[in-house]
Amino acid sequence: MASEPRQPSSPGGPRVLVAGASGFTGALAAYLLWRHPDFELSMLTARSQLGSRLRDIYPRYRVPLALQELDLDAAADAADAAIVAYPHAAAAPTVAALRERGLRVVDLSADYRLNSLADYEHWYGEHPCPELMKEAVYGLTELHREQIAGAALVANPGCYPTASLLALAPLARAGLLADVVIDAKQGVSGAGRVFDESTHLSMAGENIVPYKVAAHRHTPEIEEQLALLGAPAMRVQFQAHLVALDQGEQVSCYVTPTRAVAGEELRELYRQAYAQEPFVEVVDGPPGVREVRETNFCRLFAAFDEHTGKVLAFSSIDNLWKGTSSQALQNLNLMFGLPETRGLL
Amino acid sequence: MASEPRQPSSPGGPRVLVAGASGFTGALAAYLLWRHPDFELSMLTARSQLGSRLRDIYPRYRVPLALQELDLDAAADAADAAIVAYPHAAAAPTVAALRERGLRVVDLSADYRLNSLADYEHWYGEHPCPELMKEAVYGLTELHREQIAGAALVANPGCYPTASLLALAPLARAGLLADVVIDAKQGVSGAGRVFDESTHLSMAGENIVPYKVAAHRHTPEIEEQLALLGAPAMRVQFQAHLVALDQGEQVSCYVTPTRAVAGEELRELYRQAYAQEPFVEVVDGPPGVREVRETNFCRLFAAFDEHTGKVLAFSSIDNLWKGTSSQALQNLNLMFGLPETRGLL
Amino acid sequence: MASEPRQPSSPGGPRVLVAGASGFTGALAAYLLWRHPDFELSMLTARSQLGSRLRDIYPRYRVPLALQELDLDAAADAADAAIVAYPHAAAAPTVAALRERGLRVVDLSADYRLNSLADYEHWYGEHPCPELMKEAVYGLTELHREQIAGAALVANPGCYPTASLLALAPLARAGLLADVVIDAKQGVSGAGRVFDESTHLSMAGENIVPYKVAAHRHTPEIEEQLALLGAPAMRVQFQAHLVALDQGEQVSCYVTPTRAVAGEELRELYRQAYAQEPFVEVVDGPPGVREVRETNFCRLFAAFDEHTGKVLAFSSIDNLWKGTSSQALQNLNLMFGLPETRGLL
Amino acid sequence: MASEPRQPSSPGGPRVLVAGASGFTGALAAYLLWRHPDFELSMLTARSQLGSRLRDIYPRYRVPLALQELDLDAAADAADAAIVAYPHAAAAPTVAALRERGLRVVDLSADYRLNSLADYEHWYGEHPCPELMKEAVYGLTELHREQIAGAALVANPGCYPTASLLALAPLARAGLLADVVIDAKQGVSGAGRVFDESTHLSMAGENIVPYKVAAHRHTPEIEEQLALLGAPAMRVQFQAHLVALDQGEQVSCYVTPTRAVAGEELRELYRQAYAQEPFVEVVDGPPGVREVRETNFCRLFAAFDEHTGKVLAFSSIDNLWKGTSSQALQNLNLMFGLPETRGLL
Repeated sequence: MASEPRQPSSPGGPRVLVAGASGFTGALAAYLLWRHPDFELSMLTARSQLGSRLRDIYPRYRVPLALQELDLDAAADAADAAIVAYPHAAAAPTVAALRERGLRVVDLSADYRLNSLADYEHWYGEHPCPELMKEAVYGLTELHREQIAGAALVANPGCYPTASLLALAPLARAGLLADVVIDAKQGVSGAGRVFDESTHLSMAGENIVPYKVAAHRHTPEIEEQLALLGAPAMRVQFQAHLVALDQGEQVSCYVTPTRAVAGEELRELYRQAYAQEPFVEVVDGPPGVREVRETNFCRLFAAFDEHTGKVLAFSSIDNLWKGTSSQALQNLNLMFGLPETRGLL
Repeated sequence: MASEPRQPSSPGGPRVLVAGASGFTGALAAYLLWRHPDFELSMLTARSQLGSRLRDIYPRYRVPLALQELDLDAAADAADAAIVAYPHAAAAPTVAALRERGLRVVDLSADYRLNSLADYEHWYGEHPCPELMKEAVYGLTELHREQIAGAALVANPGCYPTASLLALAPLARAGLLADVVIDAKQGVSGAGRVFDESTHLSMAGENIVPYKVAAHRHTPEIEEQLALLGAPAMRVQFQAHLVALDQGEQVSCYVTPTRAVAGEELRELYRQAYAQEPFVEVVDGPPGVREVRETNFCRLFAAFDEHTGKVLAFSSIDNLWKGTSSQALQNLNLMFGLPETRGLL
Repeated sequence: MASEPRQPSSPGGPRVLVAGASGFTGALAAYLLWRHPDFELSMLTARSQLGSRLRDIYPRYRVPLALQELDLDAAADAADAAIVAYPHAAAAPTVAALRERGLRVVDLSADYRLNSLADYEHWYGEHPCPELMKEAVYGLTELHREQIAGAALVANPGCYPTASLLALAPLARAGLLADVVIDAKQGVSGAGRVFDESTHLSMAGENIVPYKVAAHRHTPEIEEQLALLGAPAMRVQFQAHLVALDQGEQVSCYVTPTRAVAGEELRELYRQAYAQEPFVEVVDGPPGVREVRETNFCRLFAAFDEHTGKVLAFSSIDNLWKGTSSQALQNLNLMFGLPETRGLL
Repeated sequence: MASEPRQPSSPGGPRVLVAGASGFTGALAAYLLWRHPDFELSMLTARSQLGSRLRDIYPRYRVPLALQELDLDAAADAADAAIVAYPHAAAAPTVAALRERGLRVVDLSADYRLNSLADYEHWYGEHPCPELMKEAVYGLTELHREQIAGAALVANPGCYPTASLLALAPLARAGLLADVVIDAKQGVSGAGRVFDESTHLSMAGENIVPYKVAAHRHTPEIEEQLALLGAPAMRVQFQAHLVALDQGEQVSCYVTPTRAVAGEELRELYRQAYAQEPFVEVVDGPPGVREVRETNFCRLFAAFDEHTGKVLAFSSIDNLWKGTSSQALQNLNLMFGLPETRGLL
């Protein structure tokens, strides 16, 4: 592109780097920082495509910074905070090194999401740097807002736990949640910048296919958080599906309640639970993913099924936004004392 | 189109008319009859677009017959059998009138699917012609093949029950099915030739949205058939979702089994259940809907989840084909003593 | 939706109403005004769905105002300016009435785009209010910026002329344009909130189809503007195609130049022509529509074909944004003395 | 998959192998042979995924044969004919070796499409086996039917030339074609089994992008054939675009005619030209690609534009079917004395 950028990032504000900016979620985080009125996007690092400008890889985001190799000392000079968009297990050592140099970190990986080291090791294998697990705050903003505001390390939740927990939290808190089956559907962007049969338009297009059957790693994250919300210990049935669209995630929860709940009670429960939330919309019918595409919103609807006695809770988010990168910004806003909605509406 | 058809239907074979040929399922039934080596497509009726040739409305099907108003006497002269593609409640009187004139009928509506009149009235309201309910055979071919072969009236199953029952039948027969949650996803063609927000590409595109929450009429059909297969009485939790694709239906069943089932036992159960079935494929991983698009195949996969103790059963069909119109042909083949796969492979 | 809006429009700024806010372009204009830092969205009118909140019809835009019938006196009280999103011929009388009451107007219809009344009448029939034609300024911002800044009535260009003229203007100005064939492709949103075969996902999906063959009304608008840019009188060959996507417009121009032009000269010509433009990007390879989706950007690429001696010019815009509603905001910014990029980056 | 195939290929008929069966066009050719009533699909070769059954790579085609390395002697034992689906330049030596062993060959590559060796070398570089160029017949069935029937080597046309030449042939033969601009659009399957940014659903989805600007190799093929049809020597302007769908190709031809042609004369010209053609449909309005999807049909529409004096000719095919693999079958039918439509309706 011939011309220079017209959207200068915000000089003078807290400086943020994105580590792993060549993937879908890192690139989106960079874009959100770039257009943010208070943060300065100060550095982009990646392990491939070094030297390329982000705007040449993701033209629509128009971020002119070039990708460079991560040099920890240079990073410490250049940034006050970092969003780390690395794969699981690869993230932890970098997170630890950045923390050591004083940067506040939002980690998009699963490495610091769990409180239980045993659970982590069961699902992911050995943990590279378990010491920081105590320091890390689980970054589902609506559930841990106060802790996030004071945190130096935030473990951003997975997109599936984000949608699932927002749908289930009111029931868990009210002591209504006895058991749950979660059926989740997600667009192809959830697979990331991966080039294979699962993302080729001629194969993924016009398709719906379940994946990772009886093996999804998001289960322990959901179970641990539900317990924190007061739910009894339970084994959550979770199943993901890949669907022929780009961005979007829809979660249907089939809840066995501890008692029958009238529809109006249910509606009131959800309305009150999220009345003050700027990014959670409780609606009167099943929400579609288009309604939240490229936003930080989560849309919720709950109903009681008289035929079966189950409570149905439906949740829609954009997997790349509220499911990942815009929620990282929401958390970063809080960590730096900014209004939570800053740069996100 | 200037030129005349080059695919003459089969003169001399049983003559079949399609009533309601302007909708998606009627038009597909007409196409399948047109290209069938043994049936003669003899008449198309509809209540709109009278006089239009089907090939002008559905160019891809290339069926040159014109749509005419249904005249029962003319129909009796012109046809030995009929596929009736009318909406629920509208179908029954026409079905009855055609039966009276001696035509064998495959009814695509829900009017004769249930054995219990009480259940019908609970979900659909008053039944226009309940007398024929006894005569009607439920047309899920793999479950009622023998009865279908001798039937004069076949009630073709709904697409959701087709996919769900094929996934659940082996468990029900083996006494393993205690309870089930069914999460179903379907392309926009399932909504039919309806022009509104739910089908406009700029609204339905890139979307996933649950619909008919806690209110789906396919539940009684599934429950009744499961009971016939030997399952205990149960209330089935069923939820449908509209997904941004054209044809395709994917069903995920979350089964509470009566006892733990080892993975190998499960695989063997499904393999044996469908070993002789020409249109059911038991596969070793979760099947996508692309794999069955525009075919009469159903693809199944079952797994045991050790974390939760549940059995997961996944089913994929084409909602317009095996879900509706090609299964109607499969049944019609049987009703006229033809090989079941005739014209469908 | 239970909760109240959190994005209050800007009180104190110029007040703008949108007439015809229930269609795609009117609704998008309302959204862009709603999130604009300086304008106050003060009123929404429509001829259907009266009383509905816009956020219930277009949830993603989250605009809480309700649609009301257009009352001209109330409009004059409530607004300093209006964006009129009416069909051709229906717009002119409303535009005239609003102008009479002192509102500045951006008209999205074709009614005031042409300078020649004879041409208008040839393509559209009788003009309802031809008196205002002289006052109206053609709103292709990059071509008429100064006039727009002082205008009380701006005739926003069609989306096809916008993409075509930005691609051709440098050649026209340089005296290089002798003749042109324009092949244009557009997503289904270009057909508007119309519910029929052309927009049903099961019919428009996976399709490419030319439309309005040898009959497109955008030709005179392009021809008139090319003449103003210095091109010789010519008959432009223009053909539109509907493509199976939502938003996006791609235009390929096959130009017979007045002389051979070396590639480097061509690149330099385009670079200089748009060096100062905030919303035009001259790039080094063919631009895709994804790169400009939901932005006010136009992306251009030109090349010389040595095999044929023709100049190829490619243009990509979002038909609803730069093609219509965001360009309306770009113009409104200028009309009220605001920076042109305000609210659009 | 547990069960064995139920669609045995036709033993006793001519035996055909597909070389290069792992790509999109080779796999489709294998499927079409598999379901063909007279040919026996006898062998599949590939250079990757050796040992895999084709039905595991392309489940929808359900072809149970496994991919093996190409052994020329084994091939000669196993087959009477071959369809070679190799990339350009790689195909020629294999074609030559198979011919030497007596197999009749349909070559899907460009290696034997051109009559002029000089042209080949200009566009593709050195020709590996130019000796066979004289023997090869250009396989656009509708143009060279008689020669194909007696040919031992058929060079199947490119998909773009197929659609373009069928649209232009009537004009060329009638001496009406003076010059032409061809704007072609194609779905992502045209890029083949390639995994990169151009085929990833999150990048290719919702996109339209021109490619190979001023550099497309299909031009000489079109120019050579037009000259054979009687057109004067001309430089054809050809531009391809990649569009966000799977299968489908639409071509718009902007023809400068040698004289004005009335609309009725034009319609009559096209109708008569293709009156006897089983796979060419001349229609009365612009044809969409959905109308020919997964068929061997080409749909044509021509119109005269009074505004510009140009003739517009529109053509739609399925790029993988009539554009490549089903046309190969159409040719193979002729080469073995079978009815041309055999296995294709």
